[in-house]
Formats: sequence, C-alpha cells, structure tokens
Amino acid sequence: MTSLYDVAAIGNAIVDVIAPASDDFLTDAGLIKGSMILIDDVQAEALYARMAAAVEVSGGSACNTIAGLSSFGGRGAFIGKLGVDALGAVFTHDIEAMGARFGGVPLSDNVTGRCLINVTPDGERTMTTCLGAAALLDPSDVEPAIIEAAAVVYLEGYLFDPEPARRAFAKAAGLARASGRMIALTLSDSFVVDRHRGALMGFIESEVDILFANEAEITALCQTKSFEDAAEAMRGRAKIAAITRGAQGSTVIAGDQTHHVNAARVEKVVDTTGAGDQYAAGFLHGLTRGLSFDHCGRLGSLAAAEVIAHYGPRPQVSLRDLAAKAGL
Amino acid sequence: MTSLYDVAAIGNAIVDVIAPASDDFLTDAGLIKGSMILIDDVQAEALYARMAAAVEVSGGSACNTIAGLSSFGGRGAFIGKLGVDALGAVFTHDIEAMGARFGGVPLSDNVTGRCLINVTPDGERTMTTCLGAAALLDPSDVEPAIIEAAAVVYLEGYLFDPEPARRAFAKAAGLARASGRMIALTLSDSFVVDRHRGALMGFIESEVDILFANEAEITALCQTKSFEDAAEAMRGRAKIAAITRGAQGSTVIAGDQTHHVNAARVEKVVDTTGAGDQYAAGFLHGLTRGLSFDHCGRLGSLAAAEVIAHYGPRPQVSLRDLAAKAGL
Repeated sequence: MTSLYDVAAIGNAIVDVIAPASDDFLTDAGLIKGSMILIDDVQAEALYARMAAAVEVSGGSACNTIAGLSSFGGRGAFIGKLGVDALGAVFTHDIEAMGARFGGVPLSDNVTGRCLINVTPDGERTMTTCLGAAALLDPSDVEPAIIEAAAVVYLEGYLFDPEPARRAFAKAAGLARASGRMIALTLSDSFVVDRHRGALMGFIESEVDILFANEAEITALCQTKSFEDAAEAMRGRAKIAAITRGAQGSTVIAGDQTHHVNAARVEKVVDTTGAGDQYAAGFLHGLTRGLSFDHCGRLGSLAAAEVIAHYGPRPQVSLRDLAAKAGL
Repeated sequence: MTSLYDVAAIGNAIVDVIAPASDDFLTDAGLIKGSMILIDDVQAEALYARMAAAVEVSGGSACNTIAGLSSFGGRGAFIGKLGVDALGAVFTHDIEAMGARFGGVPLSDNVTGRCLINVTPDGERTMTTCLGAAALLDPSDVEPAIIEAAAVVYLEGYLFDPEPARRAFAKAAGLARASGRMIALTLSDSFVVDRHRGALMGFIESEVDILFANEAEITALCQTKSFEDAAEAMRGRAKIAAITRGAQGSTVIAGDQTHHVNAARVEKVVDTTGAGDQYAAGFLHGLTRGLSFDHCGRLGSLAAAEVIAHYGPRPQVSLRDLAAKAGL
C-alpha cells in the first residue's frame, strides 16, 4: 500500500518559551521538576513575568516528532489547532519549512498555545502549558484524506484530557483502521496516565499498534513498582511497546520479543525537552522503512541524543546525515 | 558622580528570527552575505516563507549590548519602540528578566520589528530587517531621567537612517553632555556609514566619547583602503575608538595610545550574530568600572567569543562567571 505520508500526527500546537532556571526557582513557583502541568492565561502571565530571558521555538510533543521525522527525510503531516496570531504564524511556518503538511485550521478568536519551560542546570525541563486554541481540537479537525494517506497515525496522549479531542482520536483511529493503517500513541505524561488510566488502557488494547512511553508513564499505566513488571504487563496489550529509560536506553516489547537498545552518547545534557518526541521520530522513521526493531530503537536513541545536547525540542542538524555518519 | 545605570542604550527594538541557510539560498534570495538590509512587510513575508524552521529570540543591536552588560552584572536601561503584540511582549519580558529598565513606549498600531537572520554553515549571519514600530522612535521617546542617570549613553548607528531618530540622538547627546555623562556610538553597518558619512563624522567629532566599529565600518567612514590608515584617521576625532577585527581581535585608539587586544579562543563559530554588540558590552562594563583599555578590550573579546559559539545574539551563560573564571 503506498502512502503520501509516513506519519500523520495529531497533537497540541504549542510554541515553547524556554528559559534557564534554578532549582530554587521551581520550588518558589511551586513546580515539580520534570513534570508538565496545565495553567491558565493568568497563571501563565504571572509565571512568565518571573522567568529569565527566554528563547521562543515551535514545540508541541507530536509536532516535534514530525520535525524529527522530516529531518530524517520522512514525510510527515500534522493536525493541531492554533490562533491567528504571531505565534501561530511562527508555528505554521516552521512545519511547512521542514517540508511537512499542516492540516490544522487556525481559530481567529483564540491565542496559540504556549509552553513555559524552565530548564535547570542538570538539563531537566519543567513544563507549564497554557493550551489556548490547542485545547479546542475536535473531530471536525481530523481531515480523512490526511489520515487515510499516512502509513502511521500518531496520537499525543496529552489530548486525552479534553473530551472533544478524545473523540477526534477515536475518529482518527477508526479512519486509520478502515484504511489498513497503523496507529501509534505516546503516553505523554504520567499525570495524564493517572487521570485516564482505564480509558487509555482500553484505547491501547483495542486500537494501538505502537505504544511509546517512558518509565514513569508505563509504571503509572500498569500500576507496578518495577519497570520490568510494567513492560511484561504490556506484552500482548500493545502490538509494539517502545519504552524509553533515559540514560539507560530503551526497551522494545513486541509479541514474545524483547530488545534492549542503548542510549547514544551525549557530551553534556543541556535540555531534555523533546527527548521522547525525537526517540519516537527515529523509531517511526525506521518502522515505516521496514527496519528491524533494534534498528528502529537505535535511530530513536540517535535523535534523542541530538536534541538533549542543545536548547529546544527539535533537531538543529540533519538527522539523516547524523544517521548516515553513525552507519544507521 | 553616582549613576542609577551604567549604560542607557537607544536602539531598534527587534525580535530576531534565526534559521540555518545555504550559500545558494542567499544567492537565490539576492542577499549579500554578512550584510544588513531593510525590507518592508511584503518582502519580509516572502523571504520568511522561503526560510528554514527558525528560532525566535529578542535582538536589536543596542539591546543585545544591554543584555551582555546585565550578564556581566552591570546596570542597563534601553529605550526603543515596539508594538503591542506577542513579539513586543517577548521583547519587553526579556529586557526586564535580565534586570534592565525598559524605557520604551509601545505603539498599538504598529507591529514589533523583526530581523530575519539566515546563518550559513560558516557561522556568518545575513540580516534582513523589517523595522515596524522601531522606525518611529522620536525625541519624545528619550526620557531625560533615564539619560541623566546613566554613566554612558549608548547609541545604535542603525538609527541614523530615520530622521526623527537622529533628532532623538541629538536630544540624548545634549542631555548626556549637560549632565557630564559619556556618549558612545556604534557604527552598526558599513552601508549606514556610506549613506551618512558626513553627518556621522560630524556627530562623532562633536559628541562622541567612545566609538565602536568593525573594520568594514571604520574604513567606510574614513574612506581609506587599509585598516591602519582608518585607525590613524580616527585618532583625536573620537576620544576612544574601539575597533573590532573578527578573529584578529580588536584595536583601541585613545589619544596617543594604541592597544591591540587578541580575540578569545572559540572552538567552533556557530553564529556570528551579536559579536560586535557583545564586544561593546564587555568594553563598556570595564569602562564603567574604571578598568584599563586593555582590560576593557579583553572583557569585550570574552563576551564576543561566548556569543558566536551558539545560535542567538545574547549570552547563554553568566558573563560575570565567565570573566571570573578567565581571571578578568
């Protein structure tokens, strides 16, 4: 079956506002290091006013994955909702500049979503998201022609929170299934998992071919103490589960197979924003090219290593060149 | 004489939009590598549409210098004009987040200025600026209380183009002179110098205590073939001339003194945007602390080396810490 796109992603359209911060700053602001929380406009203004001078760059978990896929030379599309404003123009430009298709519909009376990201000296990012227009994604935004033309539809777990977006997921999954396409889901955040454990597990068992998660998310989903127990609990529930473990690399569970993949070496971790998104980019790029799970995982590790070595959630160099250099 | 501010700068309030580009891209777009040209809204839209995915970060030559000064621990203020829009909010936040005073008045019916910067693999930046509200700076924007409270008033040569801004410079110079303050000017660009050679030289001779320029600008101003001839031609015209020469370091001319200062070592030049601005930051920080010209020049070299090793025109680490580490 031919595909116009390798991956069509549905997620939050977000511009990241990234600034350095101390651990004391997080404590004073009542933020839990490494977490993502949703905040409203008023809270965002107040936090922003206290943050250091920042850099603005297009983000959003699933769209970061499309950026990585494009950098590998893959063909991506992205569906999300943003405002008719300067940040929305930036977000749209950055998608199209990387050669991907933007399938979103801008909303004139809502602002584009922002994620205020405080990066501590250890490279850990703490995220506070003001969703704006992104929260209003609904089934009508899911253009069938895009989903039906993509080898994989990739869904961002953050969108399990708003009910209309969850219906958009169901619509996308139905379209993908009917067209014989694969469905991938990333769990996004352990708090999202806590809020929607049952619904998420049901969706995974009935719809998901490829599940992406990190250690905290998968143990939250399976309510196990150890990573190993959680990984075993997923076997057979998702056809493929690719679970990232930071510096310990990743584990891919598929049927009775288990693959451990090492992390790629990083000189200095500057900002971990986008690590999981880029792992998914590499993995999906390999998968849509028919490569082995081990090979897919190594492409994921390579992309994650590139993005954590600098500020910002998207690759700054060609991942295709990087992969060629690494013999992948 | 005590001062509330070490440096009060007047310049264009600009947000930089920075993207990687090939040399062929510059040729196709009709851009001259390393130059700065002014473009209008329509041209900016067309060029932006062709550019790669970008990063947005507060810029503007003189305000970059205030950012550097703040990073050294100095006290800065900035006067410039911007719009009531998302980029204007970003610009204002970034000034205040670094502890400097923003003395500008936002304009509700004009957009904040943008500078589209294409960075080639050799690290050279080519700038195309859409001034927006920044072009409308006029004498009424120059708040006497800010100028009179600053040890040095620092003027950005780019503002020699619009006539009202030039009158704003004259007002600021008059206020500074009457309060016994120092006046510094950066030439900004060799094309600006070509357009306003006579007026600039007159302003320098009558008003300027400290002149900043690079090799291209100073030879354009003095219409000499060699750097050495230009430097000699400036002796006595500006009380102090600090002239940067890229990898060759800088030369400080002051009365009958001549100081050569080496460039600081850089592993890899990533993006030269802001090199001259940060040199001025280091130099002025030293000067307002009563340090020797040689010491001032070395602080300038240190700050320039930091900023060209990464994307973006402002320091990403504390220049105060960097100077302490370097024994400066």
